Amino acid sequence: MPRNIAAVIAYDGTDFSGFQTQKNGRSIQAEIESALATIHKHSVKISAAGRTDAGVHAVGQVINFVSDISSLPSERFARALNAALPEEIRVVRSIEVPMSFHARRDAREREYRYYLLLPHAGVPFYLRYSLRLTTIPDIALLNRLASAVTGVHDFETFTAKGDPSLSRVRAIFSASFFMQGPFLVFTIRGNAFLWKMVRSVLGTILELEREKASVSALEKLLASRKRENAGTTLPPKGLFLHEVSYGTEFRI
Amino acid sequence: MPRNIAAVIAYDGTDFSGFQTQKNGRSIQAEIESALATIHKHSVKISAAGRTDAGVHAVGQVINFVSDISSLPSERFARALNAALPEEIRVVRSIEVPMSFHARRDAREREYRYYLLLPHAGVPFYLRYSLRLTTIPDIALLNRLASAVTGVHDFETFTAKGDPSLSRVRAIFSASFFMQGPFLVFTIRGNAFLWKMVRSVLGTILELEREKASVSALEKLLASRKRENAGTTLPPKGLFLHEVSYGTEFRI
Repeated sequence: MPRNIAAVIAYDGTDFSGFQTQKNGRSIQAEIESALATIHKHSVKISAAGRTDAGVHAVGQVINFVSDISSLPSERFARALNAALPEEIRVVRSIEVPMSFHARRDAREREYRYYLLLPHAGVPFYLRYSLRLTTIPDIALLNRLASAVTGVHDFETFTAKGDPSLSRVRAIFSASFFMQGPFLVFTIRGNAFLWKMVRSVLGTILELEREKASVSALEKLLASRKRENAGTTLPPKGLFLHEVSYGTEFRI
Repeated sequence: MPRNIAAVIAYDGTDFSGFQTQKNGRSIQAEIESALATIHKHSVKISAAGRTDAGVHAVGQVINFVSDISSLPSERFARALNAALPEEIRVVRSIEVPMSFHARRDAREREYRYYLLLPHAGVPFYLRYSLRLTTIPDIALLNRLASAVTGVHDFETFTAKGDPSLSRVRAIFSASFFMQGPFLVFTIRGNAFLWKMVRSVLGTILELEREKASVSALEKLLASRKRENAGTTLPPKGLFLHEVSYGTEFRI
């Protein structure tokens, strides 16, 4: 009997051209499908909750695939795949899910986090996983600005040229900043995100904070639906797909 | 009045040819001396507690230098240097010490730590800072083997060809293994270390554990004073100069 297996995946995206298989460059998807082909002896396709861009990392990406291997307990797929995967990609755990489960279609919420390293943090070990701030921002103002992107909006202002989505409307459930060790962390939860949207929203919020702008300035940018009004898109290295939620129907 | 400034330094050694300035490659020492020259407008030499090899990291390297800048409080040298240093090298703090203090000569104990990532750890973010184990070792046996290198010994067996030391005798105060998050950590404290000694000692201990060898096997290797009896020298990426101690006379 074929089983539907879901897995939580973590990866260092630095040296990948993104999650999705493309003509050029190494992709996370191709590495996982190659590892699946190794253990299945035939081609196996995956679905994934988030198509992270080139250089973006994940601690909580979710994938699923249908397997005809009957001898392997579902929780042991993690170990079997890890033996076949490059060290930059790790399967955190694997479980059996109903055949109807689809990692992308059934995802209700996706949470991304961007790690900003504080200017005077005396640690040199997070260069691949964070962006160093040059000044200490006003965190209360950052949080007021972040609140302006919550709700249902057309995010045309904050997408990248070439985004293939039919609609730019997305629901943002929360967006805020908090301190964690040497980091100022930006966390944002939404039903889905456009290309480079998190990095564009955060780059814009940081620029508005430097200008001591008001929340209404950000609201105007959002309402303008003009990409040229957005601030700098931050580099991918600080961004992580943190968690994907499937509601009560599926527990991953 | 010139002041003697001591500083604690952390660095990611991955892309450096080692601490000490050499003919070829980037060195930590050259980067620090270049940053000091930038803020002093003339050349300033440093002394350092540990001459870490190519690719070895540090969280607690200690350096000192004599400064003729009178306008800068001693604790502010950290920030001034960090502004001039590459992000891979950070000054954790700086303090004024007596003119007689010398970071290398006065160091009483040096502690190195080697981070071994457990085989099934689902984290892909420590590849530059640890070595992944392929099996879970017997930690009690590792600790018994480690105890054999404590004490005063001639460490000829565990040094690299070309080590310039006049004597290979070193005092090891402690050597042990402990678990920390996804890591098995090897920690070793001694008065000083030979070239590649920590990585050679640990590589040998791990091989003897795989053979389920006795402590006397390691004692024999040590007593043989023959380099060909040592195991593999582990890669530098898992090794950190963790701490340098100066006794009660100097508090860094």
